[in-house]
Amino acid sequence: MNDTGITKRLADWAVDLRADEIPADVRAEGVRTFVNWLGCAVGGARHETVDRALDAMRMFSGPERAQVIGRTERLDELHAALVNGISSHVLDYDDTHLKTIIHPAGPVASAILAVAESLAISGRDFLTALIVGVEVECRIGNCVYPDHYDRGWHITGTAGVFGAAAATGKLIGLTRQQMVWAFGIAATQSSGLREMFGTMCKSFHPGRAAQNGAMAAFLAKANFDSSDRAIEAPRGFANVLSTKQDYSEIIGGLGTRWEAGLNTYKPYACGIVIHPTIDGCQQLRERLGDRVSAIVAVELRTHPLVLELTGKRTPKTGLEGKFSVFHAAATALLRSDGSPTAFTDGAVRDPAIMALRDKVTATSDTSVDEDAVHIAVTLEDGERISLHVPHAIGSLERPLSNVAIGEKFISQSIPVIGEKAARDLLARGWALETAVDVAQIARAGAARV
Amino acid sequence: MNDTGITKRLADWAVDLRADEIPADVRAEGVRTFVNWLGCAVGGARHETVDRALDAMRMFSGPERAQVIGRTERLDELHAALVNGISSHVLDYDDTHLKTIIHPAGPVASAILAVAESLAISGRDFLTALIVGVEVECRIGNCVYPDHYDRGWHITGTAGVFGAAAATGKLIGLTRQQMVWAFGIAATQSSGLREMFGTMCKSFHPGRAAQNGAMAAFLAKANFDSSDRAIEAPRGFANVLSTKQDYSEIIGGLGTRWEAGLNTYKPYACGIVIHPTIDGCQQLRERLGDRVSAIVAVELRTHPLVLELTGKRTPKTGLEGKFSVFHAAATALLRSDGSPTAFTDGAVRDPAIMALRDKVTATSDTSVDEDAVHIAVTLEDGERISLHVPHAIGSLERPLSNVAIGEKFISQSIPVIGEKAARDLLARGWALETAVDVAQIARAGAARV
Repeated sequence: MNDTGITKRLADWAVDLRADEIPADVRAEGVRTFVNWLGCAVGGARHETVDRALDAMRMFSGPERAQVIGRTERLDELHAALVNGISSHVLDYDDTHLKTIIHPAGPVASAILAVAESLAISGRDFLTALIVGVEVECRIGNCVYPDHYDRGWHITGTAGVFGAAAATGKLIGLTRQQMVWAFGIAATQSSGLREMFGTMCKSFHPGRAAQNGAMAAFLAKANFDSSDRAIEAPRGFANVLSTKQDYSEIIGGLGTRWEAGLNTYKPYACGIVIHPTIDGCQQLRERLGDRVSAIVAVELRTHPLVLELTGKRTPKTGLEGKFSVFHAAATALLRSDGSPTAFTDGAVRDPAIMALRDKVTATSDTSVDEDAVHIAVTLEDGERISLHVPHAIGSLERPLSNVAIGEKFISQSIPVIGEKAARDLLARGWALETAVDVAQIARAGAARV
Repeated sequence: MNDTGITKRLADWAVDLRADEIPADVRAEGVRTFVNWLGCAVGGARHETVDRALDAMRMFSGPERAQVIGRTERLDELHAALVNGISSHVLDYDDTHLKTIIHPAGPVASAILAVAESLAISGRDFLTALIVGVEVECRIGNCVYPDHYDRGWHITGTAGVFGAAAATGKLIGLTRQQMVWAFGIAATQSSGLREMFGTMCKSFHPGRAAQNGAMAAFLAKANFDSSDRAIEAPRGFANVLSTKQDYSEIIGGLGTRWEAGLNTYKPYACGIVIHPTIDGCQQLRERLGDRVSAIVAVELRTHPLVLELTGKRTPKTGLEGKFSVFHAAATALLRSDGSPTAFTDGAVRDPAIMALRDKVTATSDTSVDEDAVHIAVTLEDGERISLHVPHAIGSLERPLSNVAIGEKFISQSIPVIGEKAARDLLARGWALETAVDVAQIARAGAARV
C-alpha cells in the first residue's frame, strides 16, 4: 500500500480522537486492561528486580510527584513510569495482545498514571489516553510482526515506546505536529533485545518504554523536533527494525477496527506460549489426583514457538523457570499451580518438581496453534492418557471473566498492600471511568509500610 | 572467528586495565579528545536544541550535582549527561573515529564528567575511563560497520551507549560481572535512527547514549542483572542490529591496538563527509580571490556517501544546511567559512550563497576516497580550474594540531562564556592528566550569566 504520511495520519488520529468516539465494548476492555495492569503492578512491586532498580535510580529522581505502585516510595513521573512498568511485567502475569505478543498495558498505563497524578485528569480522559496508547502500539506491532520479533526484538519494548508516547501526548495535549515529533522521538529510542529474556532486563523493557515514551511526549511538547515520517521513512522504524512493513495495519480502519478491544489477560504468571500446557496439565491433575505420582512420561506436542521461547531444560532460578515449559508442566501437574508461586527459586529447586520435569518431553508441530497443545501422560502401569487443549484459558476464545480478573488482582495484591487496601484499590480500578481525578487511584496504590 | 565470550572478554579488559598500561600517545590523544569535546559542549550550549531539551527535562531532574557545560544550570548526573551530549554534537563540530563515523566523545565524556563531579575523581583516572569508553564503543562499531550503519542506525548512538556504560562503569568501580551486565543493559537500549539526521533528534542520540550508558552502569552497580553475552548472542546486539559481525574487531589486540588513538577532530561544523569539499573550496577561494563572483559552475566528484548523507539541494534551515554539500561548497567559496556560522538559518537563506549553491553539481565516484574530493570550477570567461584534495584537513593524514584544536575551542567558547573563562577552561582541559579533581573542570565550564 501507499506508505506516505503513515506517521502523520496516526498522529492526527491520536490527537483528534474524542472519548465518545470509542465504542462501549472497547472502553470496557480498556477498563479490564487497566485493572489487570494495576493488580500486576502491585503484585510485582516487591520483586528483587524492582528493589534493585530503585536502589540504583532513587538518587536520580526529581521531585516526588508520582506514586510507585505497591510501595511506599514516590518519584518523579518518569522514574515512577520506569519502576511501575518493571513491576507490572516482572511476574510475567500481565496482559497480551495475542496477534503480536505485545504486553500493551506496561508501557502505556505505567507512563500515564504517573504523569496524570499531578495533572487532575478524569478517569474518562485517562481511559481515552490509555486506549489511544494501546491502539497505537498494537497497530505498529501488527505492521512489523512477526518478522520484527523473529529478528530478535522484544516487541513490548520496541512498539511499547510509541504507545507510551501517544498516550502521554494525548494526556498533556500535544498538537498534531507535536504528536508527530513525539512518535519520532519514540522511534529513535525504540529498543529491547529478546536475548534479555530470563534476566532482569526483560521487565526493564516495558518500564523503559513507558519512561522513554513519556519523555518523548514531554520533549515534543517543548517543540523538540524530529522527523515527520519516523515510522515509514527508508531509514525509519519499520524499515530499520523489520523486514516486514504492512502499513495498512497502522492506518487501515482507524476508529472502526480496534486492536485495543483484543487484549487478553494472563491466568498464569509466565509467557503466554506455555499457557495451553499449564491449562492442560491442571486439567490432567484434576483427572489424575494422587496418580500424578505414578507418571513416568509426559509428552507435549506444541507450536514451535514454545520450545524456541521456553525450552530451558534445567532452569536454575524462578525467573528461568518461566522459560521452561518442562518446569511449568511439572508444577501444574504436581501443584496445580501457574501463579507467581510456581516460578520462585524454591519451586525450580523442589526435588519432586525437578524429578517430574525430567520426565517431560516436548516436540514442535507447526500444525498446533499457539494457544493449543496436545498432551499425553504415561503412568507406571502403562496407561496412557491424552488431552487436547484447543484454546487455553485466557485466550480470546476463552477470556478471563471480570470475576477472574478481580480474583487474580486480590490474590496478588493482598501479600503486598493488605486485604483492605487491595479491595479498595480494585474497586477504584473498576470505577475508572467515573473517577474525578485518577491521582486518587495512584495514591490508593501505595503501600503503607 | 570464535564468537564465545566476547562480552565477557571485553568487560574483563575494561575492568582490569590500569592507567600505566595505556601508551603515552594514546593518553595524549585522549586529552585531545577531551579538550575538543569540552570546547564543543561549550560552543553548542546555547543552541535552540539545548534550550528545548532543558525546557522539557528540567522538571524531572534530581539533585543538582552536575554542571551543564556552557550554561548556568545544574542537574542530576544523568540529565547533565544528556544535555552535555546534545550540546557537544549539535553543531556537528565534534570528533570522528573515521573507520566507523562514530563521534566518540559525546556519549563517553558527557557521561563521565557529569558522574565524576561528585566523586572526587583525579584527572588520571578520568582519562583512563575516557579511553576505556572510547575504545569499547569504537571496537563495537568496527565489529558491525558498515552494514549496521548502512541499515540505518546512527552508530554514535547505538555503539556510544556501550562506551558510556564502560567509562561510567570504570569510574564507579564495577566488578567484572557487573561490567558484563552494564554492557547488557546498554545493548538492550541501543538505538538511534539515521532518519533523524537534519532534526534535533540527531544530537539527542549522543546525549541519550551518554545518559543511558551511565544509567546502565548504575543499574549494574546495584546488581540489576542482564545477559552475559549481550553483544554476541544470536539475539544480541550484533546479530539483531547488523548483518556483519566481526568479533575479532572487538577482542583482537586489546591493549596493543588502540582505536582510541585514532580519533580525529573536525575543522568544520558539519558531517565529516563534506570536509574535503569545504577544504578544497577554501583553497580555491584563496586562489580565486574576487573572481569567485565569476563562477558559473562548480563540479564535485566525491565518494558516494557524500550525496547519500548530504545531498539536500535546497536546505531551509541551518541544520539542514549541514546536510547539503551544495550549501557547504558555496559558503566555503564565498565566505571561506566552515565554522558554525556557515550553518545558520541566515547563511542558508543568504541570496548570494543560494545563487552559487544552485551552480554546484556533484557526482558520486566509488574510486574517490571518503576523505578526498575532485573539484572543477568554471568561470564566466570559460577558464576551468581543477583541484584535488587527497586527504582533508582533520584526517588522520593531516590531523588538527593542538594549536588548531585550541583555536577552535576558543573561538567557540568566547561567545558563550567569555574570553577569560574560555582561556581558563582550555588550560584546565590541557592539564587534565594532572587534575586533582575533575569536578573543578566541570565547574569551570559553567556560564556565569
